[in-house]
Amino acid sequence: MLNFSFANPTKIHFGEQQIALIKSEIPTDAKVLVTYGGGSIKKNGIYEQVSNALSEHTWFEFAGIEPNPSYQTCMKAVALVKEKQIDYILAVGGGSVIDGSKFIAAAANYEGEPWDILAKGGEIKSAISLGVVLTLPATGSESNTFSVVSNLDSHDKLPFASPFVQPQFAVLDPAVTYSLPKRQVANGIVDAFVHTMEQYLTYDVDAKLQDRFAEGILMTLLEEGPKAFSEPDNYKVRANIMWSATMALNGLIGAGVPQDWSTHMLGHEMTAVYGLDHAQTLAIVLPRMMAEQKETKRGKILQYAQRVLGLDISDEDAAIEQAIAATEAFFHSVNMPTRLSDYNLGEEVADKIVKQLERHGMTALGEREQVTLEKSRAVLLASV
Amino acid sequence: MLNFSFANPTKIHFGEQQIALIKSEIPTDAKVLVTYGGGSIKKNGIYEQVSNALSEHTWFEFAGIEPNPSYQTCMKAVALVKEKQIDYILAVGGGSVIDGSKFIAAAANYEGEPWDILAKGGEIKSAISLGVVLTLPATGSESNTFSVVSNLDSHDKLPFASPFVQPQFAVLDPAVTYSLPKRQVANGIVDAFVHTMEQYLTYDVDAKLQDRFAEGILMTLLEEGPKAFSEPDNYKVRANIMWSATMALNGLIGAGVPQDWSTHMLGHEMTAVYGLDHAQTLAIVLPRMMAEQKETKRGKILQYAQRVLGLDISDEDAAIEQAIAATEAFFHSVNMPTRLSDYNLGEEVADKIVKQLERHGMTALGEREQVTLEKSRAVLLASV
Repeated sequence: MLNFSFANPTKIHFGEQQIALIKSEIPTDAKVLVTYGGGSIKKNGIYEQVSNALSEHTWFEFAGIEPNPSYQTCMKAVALVKEKQIDYILAVGGGSVIDGSKFIAAAANYEGEPWDILAKGGEIKSAISLGVVLTLPATGSESNTFSVVSNLDSHDKLPFASPFVQPQFAVLDPAVTYSLPKRQVANGIVDAFVHTMEQYLTYDVDAKLQDRFAEGILMTLLEEGPKAFSEPDNYKVRANIMWSATMALNGLIGAGVPQDWSTHMLGHEMTAVYGLDHAQTLAIVLPRMMAEQKETKRGKILQYAQRVLGLDISDEDAAIEQAIAATEAFFHSVNMPTRLSDYNLGEEVADKIVKQLERHGMTALGEREQVTLEKSRAVLLASV
Repeated sequence: MLNFSFANPTKIHFGEQQIALIKSEIPTDAKVLVTYGGGSIKKNGIYEQVSNALSEHTWFEFAGIEPNPSYQTCMKAVALVKEKQIDYILAVGGGSVIDGSKFIAAAANYEGEPWDILAKGGEIKSAISLGVVLTLPATGSESNTFSVVSNLDSHDKLPFASPFVQPQFAVLDPAVTYSLPKRQVANGIVDAFVHTMEQYLTYDVDAKLQDRFAEGILMTLLEEGPKAFSEPDNYKVRANIMWSATMALNGLIGAGVPQDWSTHMLGHEMTAVYGLDHAQTLAIVLPRMMAEQKETKRGKILQYAQRVLGLDISDEDAAIEQAIAATEAFFHSVNMPTRLSDYNLGEEVADKIVKQLERHGMTALGEREQVTLEKSRAVLLASV
């Protein structure tokens, strides 16, 4: 096990009717900005629940944070934060709304040009307090320090992280996910699955508990994911998926182990250039990245094959092929395509994405920094 | 899954040489009281590491917090806290030192008679800040809100909990556990194992991830526990045990599931009356409690048998017997006795402990409140 430091101070309120608790989580004298996305929360009752919970607070709202939240949109919210002297942001949405709200929270207090937070690693010294009502289990952003924001002008999609933007609390009510479009349900399941794989499928450092926890998340998603489609109103299924997605990227399973993230780096560039959903890119890249890295990840892929998928690994090479095929089949089982051609894209993607990776200095990705630009190109060509 | 609220703000610093980090975790202007136990930290280098880390702080020390920390000893420390105007307590030790320090931290700020915190559930409104250097992986006290303190005069061993006494940080250096006496190593492994079982072996609420995480801890302890004796200087083994013990009782695996704790309640009384080590009592009670509760816990015992122990469960009754036997065999594998007679105790224990349980109102224990005094008596009689 590698040395690590870990803390996760976000208070989780999990279960039905927990949205009412935000009343006591946000100081009564705080001026609150409720941030959200395209307005679906006004159709499914969440907006009403939030309004009721904030009936004794002074609050404003900012709608329109888009999927892959843009710097341009976020900066409009920053102006509103300053105008209204907001001191608490309540993000109501999925990973995009939360990530955007994290950037808003940091940018509002940032001295200098806020784009530097993303482009130059500008130091964040404080942020507006942030709380979350999660509507789409997927990214884990509700209880971590990470955020990814896109620049519409420059086609950049860049991450930042700061303990100052970690949400103080997050409400997770599985019942609010019944009304999600199927595409978003699939996105969430695949995103959580690949987050786990990025932290698990590396090389062995004898971190037995982290491995077991990661395998627990993967097995739960494998078991419950397809049921979210066959039994869409099953609360238990929605609850297990929601808690798995949070645990997949709250820092716990990544503490003390090497991490990969090469699939995500390729995926971010594909979203920036082609506008594919984040999880759609992950489902395309991961199977091919596993194949490309099958020797360096050999031990862990076999462990995954045996413990998570229940495969016979006596023929190791066959087991590795089967494990990769089963992973792709799982994505299909939650209605997620896994090929560039499913989106009418072809070999041209390889050159374009490799240029983006080069421009962002991502010439040696993965836990061993062995995923060169040539290997990234090979992964993309194999993904057509 | 049941509704739950969960947060764990304790910052963990895990790994070799991490004790030096306490320098930056404790405010420079704080007056620190270092609390510890019998002085073993002066022989194994931990005291020196702590001294070096605190070289720029003003600090005092309080030695002599005993196993099953006593109210009487803790109150001497409270007097020192007040005299020296201490504003940070650094507990250096195992569960007893940490539990005692939690009580000291709360009692120092308590208006009224501090014993009421334990005896009458007196409300804790604040506490002295607390940090931890863990020397014995076992109780999980380094990152939770719980504490158990004993009264030497009245033979009471009583728990309390408060978010104010949750440690702000905890340093976990597996290397400091090489020098532990074998008896303490065994105590820690058994304690962590039974903590997990109390939160796992109940009835099914379809909390699939919590089950998988609990099973991960149990499997890790089963695999690594005996190696702590056969390979005592193996850092990886010590690290896996240390992290498992923390995760076993930091609130995570118990969030959203029913919890038992009947084995602990009987065990606390046995320690209070007979002075057995905490884990010694758990190893005696758990196998018999499993047998007594085998119908109400049937589904989960079978799940444990299959997933954790790898048993064939086609003959369910046989599998349950085998699972109980395997649990007892695991305790033996870490040199832990499992019978009252191993401590020259006999049937007289039953009456005595049942009287204690009655006195403390513990007449209906366990996740279904079905462990009556008669059933507790039967468990104890079967444990001779």
